[in-house]
Amino acid sequence: MFKIGIIGYGYWGPNLVRNFAETPGLEVAGVADLDQKRLETVQKRYPGVITTTRFQDLLEDPSIDAIAVATPVSTHFELGMAALKAGKHLWIEKPMTETSLQAHKLVDEAEKRKRVLIVDHTFVYTGAVRKMAEIIQAEDLGNVYYYDSIRVNLGLFQRDVSVISDLAVHDFSILDYLLGEQPVEVSVAGTNHFPGTPENLAYISLFYDSGMIAHCNVSWLAPVKVRQILVGGSKKMITYDDLEPSEKIKVYDKGVSFTDDPQKIYQMRVGYRTGDMWAPQLDTTEALRIEGEHFVDCIENGKAPLTDGSLGLRVVELIEAATRSMNERGRSVKVNGTRMWQGRVVA
Amino acid sequence: MFKIGIIGYGYWGPNLVRNFAETPGLEVAGVADLDQKRLETVQKRYPGVITTTRFQDLLEDPSIDAIAVATPVSTHFELGMAALKAGKHLWIEKPMTETSLQAHKLVDEAEKRKRVLIVDHTFVYTGAVRKMAEIIQAEDLGNVYYYDSIRVNLGLFQRDVSVISDLAVHDFSILDYLLGEQPVEVSVAGTNHFPGTPENLAYISLFYDSGMIAHCNVSWLAPVKVRQILVGGSKKMITYDDLEPSEKIKVYDKGVSFTDDPQKIYQMRVGYRTGDMWAPQLDTTEALRIEGEHFVDCIENGKAPLTDGSLGLRVVELIEAATRSMNERGRSVKVNGTRMWQGRVVA
Amino acid sequence: MFKIGIIGYGYWGPNLVRNFAETPGLEVAGVADLDQKRLETVQKRYPGVITTTRFQDLLEDPSIDAIAVATPVSTHFELGMAALKAGKHLWIEKPMTETSLQAHKLVDEAEKRKRVLIVDHTFVYTGAVRKMAEIIQAEDLGNVYYYDSIRVNLGLFQRDVSVISDLAVHDFSILDYLLGEQPVEVSVAGTNHFPGTPENLAYISLFYDSGMIAHCNVSWLAPVKVRQILVGGSKKMITYDDLEPSEKIKVYDKGVSFTDDPQKIYQMRVGYRTGDMWAPQLDTTEALRIEGEHFVDCIENGKAPLTDGSLGLRVVELIEAATRSMNERGRSVKVNGTRMWQGRVVA
Amino acid sequence: MFKIGIIGYGYWGPNLVRNFAETPGLEVAGVADLDQKRLETVQKRYPGVITTTRFQDLLEDPSIDAIAVATPVSTHFELGMAALKAGKHLWIEKPMTETSLQAHKLVDEAEKRKRVLIVDHTFVYTGAVRKMAEIIQAEDLGNVYYYDSIRVNLGLFQRDVSVISDLAVHDFSILDYLLGEQPVEVSVAGTNHFPGTPENLAYISLFYDSGMIAHCNVSWLAPVKVRQILVGGSKKMITYDDLEPSEKIKVYDKGVSFTDDPQKIYQMRVGYRTGDMWAPQLDTTEALRIEGEHFVDCIENGKAPLTDGSLGLRVVELIEAATRSMNERGRSVKVNGTRMWQGRVVA
Repeated sequence: MFKIGIIGYGYWGPNLVRNFAETPGLEVAGVADLDQKRLETVQKRYPGVITTTRFQDLLEDPSIDAIAVATPVSTHFELGMAALKAGKHLWIEKPMTETSLQAHKLVDEAEKRKRVLIVDHTFVYTGAVRKMAEIIQAEDLGNVYYYDSIRVNLGLFQRDVSVISDLAVHDFSILDYLLGEQPVEVSVAGTNHFPGTPENLAYISLFYDSGMIAHCNVSWLAPVKVRQILVGGSKKMITYDDLEPSEKIKVYDKGVSFTDDPQKIYQMRVGYRTGDMWAPQLDTTEALRIEGEHFVDCIENGKAPLTDGSLGLRVVELIEAATRSMNERGRSVKVNGTRMWQGRVVA
Repeated sequence: MFKIGIIGYGYWGPNLVRNFAETPGLEVAGVADLDQKRLETVQKRYPGVITTTRFQDLLEDPSIDAIAVATPVSTHFELGMAALKAGKHLWIEKPMTETSLQAHKLVDEAEKRKRVLIVDHTFVYTGAVRKMAEIIQAEDLGNVYYYDSIRVNLGLFQRDVSVISDLAVHDFSILDYLLGEQPVEVSVAGTNHFPGTPENLAYISLFYDSGMIAHCNVSWLAPVKVRQILVGGSKKMITYDDLEPSEKIKVYDKGVSFTDDPQKIYQMRVGYRTGDMWAPQLDTTEALRIEGEHFVDCIENGKAPLTDGSLGLRVVELIEAATRSMNERGRSVKVNGTRMWQGRVVA
Repeated sequence: MFKIGIIGYGYWGPNLVRNFAETPGLEVAGVADLDQKRLETVQKRYPGVITTTRFQDLLEDPSIDAIAVATPVSTHFELGMAALKAGKHLWIEKPMTETSLQAHKLVDEAEKRKRVLIVDHTFVYTGAVRKMAEIIQAEDLGNVYYYDSIRVNLGLFQRDVSVISDLAVHDFSILDYLLGEQPVEVSVAGTNHFPGTPENLAYISLFYDSGMIAHCNVSWLAPVKVRQILVGGSKKMITYDDLEPSEKIKVYDKGVSFTDDPQKIYQMRVGYRTGDMWAPQLDTTEALRIEGEHFVDCIENGKAPLTDGSLGLRVVELIEAATRSMNERGRSVKVNGTRMWQGRVVA
Repeated sequence: MFKIGIIGYGYWGPNLVRNFAETPGLEVAGVADLDQKRLETVQKRYPGVITTTRFQDLLEDPSIDAIAVATPVSTHFELGMAALKAGKHLWIEKPMTETSLQAHKLVDEAEKRKRVLIVDHTFVYTGAVRKMAEIIQAEDLGNVYYYDSIRVNLGLFQRDVSVISDLAVHDFSILDYLLGEQPVEVSVAGTNHFPGTPENLAYISLFYDSGMIAHCNVSWLAPVKVRQILVGGSKKMITYDDLEPSEKIKVYDKGVSFTDDPQKIYQMRVGYRTGDMWAPQLDTTEALRIEGEHFVDCIENGKAPLTDGSLGLRVVELIEAATRSMNERGRSVKVNGTRMWQGRVVA
């Protein structure tokens, strides 16, 4: 049984506490938050859990094995580093840090201290995304031509992060998990309709060496909520509608094939196949539950999480590159090549 | 009663002939096409109409007042110019020409000869787009923040034009008609998954001086057909789903408003309003019928068409700029400033 | 090549003429209608076709092999009988006749004269219904438990027939075609909101000896158009949405199974299975085309049509029984047992 | 502050406890259930609440003002009567009792003792149903012609009640609340596909003296979940889709109107109007919260609840009549006329 302390009980913290409390192998030992009222809520709901306004209390408690950081992103690095230095395993919310340099340092520290570092890119653990991965990895789609995502709604404007960090971050982690390839360049058109606030709308294009192209349409200014992904391949195509209650994933037996029929020599060289559609049954277990059990498994057995620090770092690098492109009205920006697997980075 | 001759009886020509035949004030006098079999079809359906493989026969016929050009875009300029020089009014398919220089010349020629030049951007004449224009021009939306369009399907690949000329051309004309403002820069990510064929997928961002941003997601590689537009304003927002049978246009009483409540000084400065949704009844008359009657009205009364040569030219300029940006992976390209209303252009 | 004459060029007649004109093996020889203006339309569209206000002209023409009757139902019997007596094969619109007695007589006459009698229950020839039949006949659904249909819209009120004859007639023919079983009793709640007009809304329940139950909800007073059928079986279930553009038929791997797990002895004895959904590709050929070719095949090769006089008669019997039940506020009425295959009927 | 005790902590009890705990003016004093494990769950979540396996403990506690009965329907009468006799106000789940005689007795007892008796027909308190009532009571629909409901899903089969008591019970209460009129007859086709279990599918038609007709299609055997109501009137029509996330209620400006245009004397006498559609914003407060506050208001101020014992009784009478009709294959059954407002009933 591993004991975990949670820092931050705002929007997401309560979901973590509720899930960790019910995850076999995990015990919620304490919750830290600066807001005394939130701590009172914790005490009512979980009388046995320690609450404190000093996060240090959790780090200094030798019985606590792991720390979850669910605070605003500007504090992720400081709190995450302190937790690792205190010898704790680390669960950190996404995006992992404000800068890729900070992310590098956390990855290095975790590696040095042999602690598990998991970044909470929850979507990767949903039944829908895991089913998509299964289909893509079985090469059922053939060559993957494009990934096209729409995440729009009339959302709460955020003070500290742009819509890229808030919404496109999901696509960046899903893309990293689904595909065996990293984007090389990014071009972003985005805008901020209200001076002094972060960008509220962005159109992000990612280019891959294989010819794959990915696109994310993210906005806090849409009158209707949309959560849709298309993935098109040479043999089949997938649609994923997260708001669909039961058939979220549909696989279309539609693809493109070439012909060399001499009859058609002056005509088009591309032929279409159309066929059945198939909506596989999905695992409906809550993603956070699966992720919690995966965290326990990684700690116990020294495994690397699916959404480890490397993935979290690559997502931060992509946010950085996308933001740079957005500031230059779409100029194509190379995605940082100093990947973790290419050696350590000097801060 | 004006007599019209149609050049080209391929994909779109039959729709023109059918509509012109039923438009009060128009009489279909002749049809020219290089394919004798198509002409036989015309003869069966419209025994009284002259058919010919020589388009010159139509131009030389003094009883013919107007010519409609419905041939591949590469021939638009030559045929359109010949028609104007023969003194005919001109109906020309979209995109108007291959290059903006050609479009300039047609506009000049039509002006010099005082002939009506209409470009067949059919969408502008639909009940849905006219209703959107009515709402926007009444300033019901407040400040228009964005226009976001998706036009994707598993379409026929075209040999001679890219997906921009095929699909985004609709948005370019709708934007020109809806808004009193032209884009200043364009950034496009697009790709061609099959070497030797035109681009089959493009993500187009248009920047406006007012801060408005427009985006078009066009593709021939999607497993499902989508035709959707969102227009968001400070007071209200519109959705337009062209595949919805009856409620194509929905107006949401949702918008963003600012607060200066000192209580919230450290919080977000943006407040949301949500309210009713309203789906106005639309005129369901076929757009081509309305456009035909409009053409007759322009000829009779010397009016400029809604989709005149200037609009057609601006659309071609936008296609050119978009294509240039696409070839440079999203680099922002200025949209050509030599607008027709700024005077004549020297070829 | 068989020559066919069409009597009636109102709502449906033009569809028949257009399809017959393009059906291999059929030639449209003449059209009869009382309205001279409609005949002029025929002459314009099909210059080679004889038109007449005297249907007798078609019957008396020895070169004509077959007659299609597309007039109001009150004239079906008289015209159909005259055509058969003139030795013509007969295509007759649905419902076949006003009374089952009339239907019996037509069936007898066709049999006596060895003429093909096809009733135009078009739905049976659609790709969707044929796919459903294929699935059901392969016993993929297991035991069929129910058939549940909704056909509602804000339709044109009809003067001469109720909503049962107008809309439920489709379900009656589909049920007859899909299932190897006839209903034994029918209970109908229906009403007429406007005195002096036929019933505009009806809820029809059909009982079968096997325990199967069928239900049809038909109305001309709904603000939205719905065309949906559910068919539920012990192993799988089908949904059919005719307004869905591409995935009209969906097959759900959901069913009910029983358990005798002693653990659950005091609990429910029914267990559920849920699984994948599958939307098979459908033949999109126009149903009327397929039906026309089937008619030619039946004439040439002496086959009985899928929707022959017996099926047409059973549908009329069901309309009669349903109307009787509706007039008695739902009292269960036995469906007429004097089936054609049990011997001839004496008028 | 009123103290409430809840009897039954199975499926619905936890929702009651959670809502009552947060309702101003209510305090959850105790929970009774026969299952010790459920009581432990209560203790963990609500440490201050008394738990007991003896419901009598709650009735005997003089500090408790009200009792909520959330047990299987077969025990409603016994427990409800005991609570009233102990002088408690009574909140009782729906359907109120197994028989209308039992319901009569509870109503009488509550009246005699001047206790508030509320039947938990939760749907009546939703924003959607309240908005429908507002529209209908403002006579915006004109004459109400029909109410047509579909409630189907692949549900859990219930041991003790049929699908009528489980699903149609919602429509019965909504109809009672929406309309100022009671049905006079009912005709039901229903069936039980699994011997020894209650009916799992039913088609219910209700007849009203005004000519209004209501229909409920309820089933536990559908592969997809549907929750839809249409209400059609002479001026406007409403659709209510409970699974729609934001626009549950749509009001169509479509209706039927009559013409006496002599030109159309031989044509149809019914004309259609079509117009805009409007989706009003709905109150999204949880219905149970509103109902809880309403209960407190009724106790404090001696008001009759919207869903009082009379309404609960009429619903039970309708279930009885519907069940009788179902057992006779749709024979029309008169709805019991011994209404509470016509005087007391002798048991």
